[in-house]
Amino acid sequence: MSHLFFTEHQDLLEQAVRAINTRGYWSPFPEVPSGKIYGENANDAGKAAFQDRLKKSFPLDEPGITGQIGAEISPYGFPLEIRYPKVDLDALFSGIETAAKSWQSADPEMWVGVALEILHRLNRRSFEIAYAVMHTTGQAFMMAFQAGGPHAQDRGLEAVAYAWTEMNRIPKTAHWEKPQGKNEPLKMEKRYRVVPRGISLIIGCCTFPTWNSYPGLFASLATGNSIVVKPHPGAVLPLAITVEIARAVLEEAGFDPNVVTLVTHEADDRVAQTLAKRPEVRLIDFTGSSSNGEWLEREARQALVYTEKAGVNPIVIDSTADLGGMIRNIAISLSLYSGQMCTAPQNIYIPKDGIDIPEGHLSFDQVATALGEAISKLLGDPVRAVELLGAIQNASVLHRLEEAREFGKIILDRQPINHPQFPEATIRTPLLLQVEATEESKFMQELFGPIAFVIPTENTTHSVALARKGALKHGALTLSVYSTNESVLNEVNQIAAEVGVALSCNLTGGVYVNQSAAFSDFHGTGANPATNAALTDSAFVASRFRVVQSRVHV
Amino acid sequence: MSHLFFTEHQDLLEQAVRAINTRGYWSPFPEVPSGKIYGENANDAGKAAFQDRLKKSFPLDEPGITGQIGAEISPYGFPLEIRYPKVDLDALFSGIETAAKSWQSADPEMWVGVALEILHRLNRRSFEIAYAVMHTTGQAFMMAFQAGGPHAQDRGLEAVAYAWTEMNRIPKTAHWEKPQGKNEPLKMEKRYRVVPRGISLIIGCCTFPTWNSYPGLFASLATGNSIVVKPHPGAVLPLAITVEIARAVLEEAGFDPNVVTLVTHEADDRVAQTLAKRPEVRLIDFTGSSSNGEWLEREARQALVYTEKAGVNPIVIDSTADLGGMIRNIAISLSLYSGQMCTAPQNIYIPKDGIDIPEGHLSFDQVATALGEAISKLLGDPVRAVELLGAIQNASVLHRLEEAREFGKIILDRQPINHPQFPEATIRTPLLLQVEATEESKFMQELFGPIAFVIPTENTTHSVALARKGALKHGALTLSVYSTNESVLNEVNQIAAEVGVALSCNLTGGVYVNQSAAFSDFHGTGANPATNAALTDSAFVASRFRVVQSRVHV
Repeated sequence: MSHLFFTEHQDLLEQAVRAINTRGYWSPFPEVPSGKIYGENANDAGKAAFQDRLKKSFPLDEPGITGQIGAEISPYGFPLEIRYPKVDLDALFSGIETAAKSWQSADPEMWVGVALEILHRLNRRSFEIAYAVMHTTGQAFMMAFQAGGPHAQDRGLEAVAYAWTEMNRIPKTAHWEKPQGKNEPLKMEKRYRVVPRGISLIIGCCTFPTWNSYPGLFASLATGNSIVVKPHPGAVLPLAITVEIARAVLEEAGFDPNVVTLVTHEADDRVAQTLAKRPEVRLIDFTGSSSNGEWLEREARQALVYTEKAGVNPIVIDSTADLGGMIRNIAISLSLYSGQMCTAPQNIYIPKDGIDIPEGHLSFDQVATALGEAISKLLGDPVRAVELLGAIQNASVLHRLEEAREFGKIILDRQPINHPQFPEATIRTPLLLQVEATEESKFMQELFGPIAFVIPTENTTHSVALARKGALKHGALTLSVYSTNESVLNEVNQIAAEVGVALSCNLTGGVYVNQSAAFSDFHGTGANPATNAALTDSAFVASRFRVVQSRVHV
Repeated sequence: MSHLFFTEHQDLLEQAVRAINTRGYWSPFPEVPSGKIYGENANDAGKAAFQDRLKKSFPLDEPGITGQIGAEISPYGFPLEIRYPKVDLDALFSGIETAAKSWQSADPEMWVGVALEILHRLNRRSFEIAYAVMHTTGQAFMMAFQAGGPHAQDRGLEAVAYAWTEMNRIPKTAHWEKPQGKNEPLKMEKRYRVVPRGISLIIGCCTFPTWNSYPGLFASLATGNSIVVKPHPGAVLPLAITVEIARAVLEEAGFDPNVVTLVTHEADDRVAQTLAKRPEVRLIDFTGSSSNGEWLEREARQALVYTEKAGVNPIVIDSTADLGGMIRNIAISLSLYSGQMCTAPQNIYIPKDGIDIPEGHLSFDQVATALGEAISKLLGDPVRAVELLGAIQNASVLHRLEEAREFGKIILDRQPINHPQFPEATIRTPLLLQVEATEESKFMQELFGPIAFVIPTENTTHSVALARKGALKHGALTLSVYSTNESVLNEVNQIAAEVGVALSCNLTGGVYVNQSAAFSDFHGTGANPATNAALTDSAFVASRFRVVQSRVHV
């Protein structure tokens, strides 16, 4: 067995292992879409490669192809007209079973080496993937490049580093020698073999198809499992390209490419459910709605199920030493990709009597108005605005946004913006509403999209109690607090630990609560209803393989 | 917060961490019940302490005590007449909630320190616990001492070592500094806090109440969870003593002892199910029947469930270089604790045309007869026999044994043996039956107790196929193979990896397939129906806690 890929990327792996253990800043995949880094023609070539995908059949030579399927529409206003293979699942799984045999008999070095080479090639294709992400999710180019490319690759590498660390802790052999008093000791040679679970199903979402899928995909692949990728019907291309690259690397390494396959399906059919309940599927990674995630947790009993579902992310404003920084930071957090992020804040709790700032005191209304004005100003220039907002991914988000306008007093109404380059794109600025703290039926639910509430509370203790309640009952991925009072910060830290939500304190600069950096930030905790796992920790990888031992006297 | 216990046991912890990573022989808790090690009076004192427990109320000052309960009967023929507290679960859980607050706010050093001190004290009480295990499980004294005492403590320490390793990998803080080209870097201070899941329910069994419970108990306690121990109504005392010791250590460390509590209940009531479905219970460790284990996996959806259930352990005999060693080894494996071990072999597959040995060829009947004779000889002396066999734990085992006599041709019938010291004890030698390979309904089920089958097969390939099928469909914890043929051994190794069962090759000496040594052998794999987890690996501990982070600009 040749471990060429492992040897080639071993330095990178070791750096990644150090990074997950120290958790400072580290990123091997440059996030700047610069020609100096990725090659002078990288952008043009990536764009051309993307455009060359359009109106064609996507070539994937999988088992069981029975036809073609595909109905992706760019949120920027045009159909992609890419046709993916439609497969018969029995034939596909039969092909996977054949492919899995030699793959599962390989060793951790092989699995990890292949995974690292796939990541390396994905990185080189970051521009093409960026355009694919942009024109399926609606993300603006810069986010599509960063979150869809290097940051997703970072998350994939992070998962490989965890997988390697856990597998590498298991010695391949051990000499066991037990003293027997005056008699000869008992001596055994023991061998420990890492064995994958089986088939790993990756269920992608339509907003972050690569970022949310790579951790599970690479954790499972690096532990010897076979992978079935089932993208959201609205965001197939980024994962189809990923599968294509993975299959090429597998073939080069001497394996049957059907170790990694793609299943494309129609919106609203039952393919996801059918896949999830197949007995061969032993691992499922899912990002999507709470109802679908809970269905998987309940019904797919033959598999280990890792879910990221909905949440209600709060901001607690108690006081601030930097009003301008706070307001600007929140305005950007609410605007980024039109709030279509699982980490975007939604409920902003502010004491009804206002907050203290260094310059004096601000009433609730003044804070709310300042936030509305900051968003307006931030998004005043359409050319700049569309690069922050991206486009609305689908009609449900738009529908939800329109409905939400009836929920309370409009502090800032949503506005359409014309994209200078894509006049057909649906772009909206955030809707900022004021609702009363008693109207929980309105704000204690995830309203995915550019919808946020300012909520007057009795005081900060009340704000924290509402943030706590929302996280406990409805889940939360992020919690943001602004306070100059140490005891408030300590209290919120306690609550965050109790309800299992990642806390950001006094973000006034260039870091936004929406952002989660691989190798440093844990994304999700698994400790509240928003997720049942974290990206990425030991628990996320350690059950994806098992150890089988063999012992013999020597 | 004082980390005295942690400091005191840190050396031991570090040795344990090295041991789990190298997996050679290591055991810090001496398995020899010797006065030289445990103190001249240790045996007498332990026996007296056990006897002093009898016919009394067991003192546990838990919340919600409403009465007394207890109906343990020593398999050696007398009722223990110990009365344990009967508790109201709502009141108990309210007390646990109060106790958990300061415990969960402590840190990994504290949790691990307390766990290590409990293990240390358990070790010093090994004789008392041995008598408690003997007179609840029916194990002979030596096994009760070793498996119930030091070996169980080893397994507990192993779980603590894994828990510590996983928690210790998470830095308490990190400095994150992201370059921003020519601008000032973004700088954040991040804190990572290990947060327990909640309440951990330990469901004990009646044959290995400590050995099978300590891994889950100590893994959960060392990760900051509170523990509810629910022993089998037939084997309460060993776990009641354990809980008593744990509570004393917790109090000395300044914690509310209700972090660890005991729930005793009547046989056949619904207390286990009620406990398992309480929302506060987030972790469940279970050893017992497949039906109860599967019920937990299916119904206790709010919790992570770790189960060890039934299995059908095969021996494949292909050929041997040491007939006497093989036969003696198997005879002991079948006799140890009258087969009342989850690791005991049951189905012995032998080619119908016999096997090759160095001296020539042996027919199937000759092998079967040799095995029957070896068992008879091994157990010929009652004084020695009872020290191997122990007593039958309960009437179901006895009933099963009698029923099984109708299943096939009796190679060796079960015999009652009179215990020289305990005339009321129910002691039986193993029943060895011959059944046909086609009679799967007879042997493809776990017949817990001193029941084993010799099964003539077409050839070794057929033997391996049956062993494989049994493990896949009904689970297996152990697989034993005897062969002088490398290709047979390789094939069985492949099959063992495929069906996730620990393999022992050519055991002819002083190691038995039933035995699983902490720090070296993984007990169970989680890869076939017998278990859904292994004792102990990273996966067994890594989900018992979560990490919650907090970040702030610096």
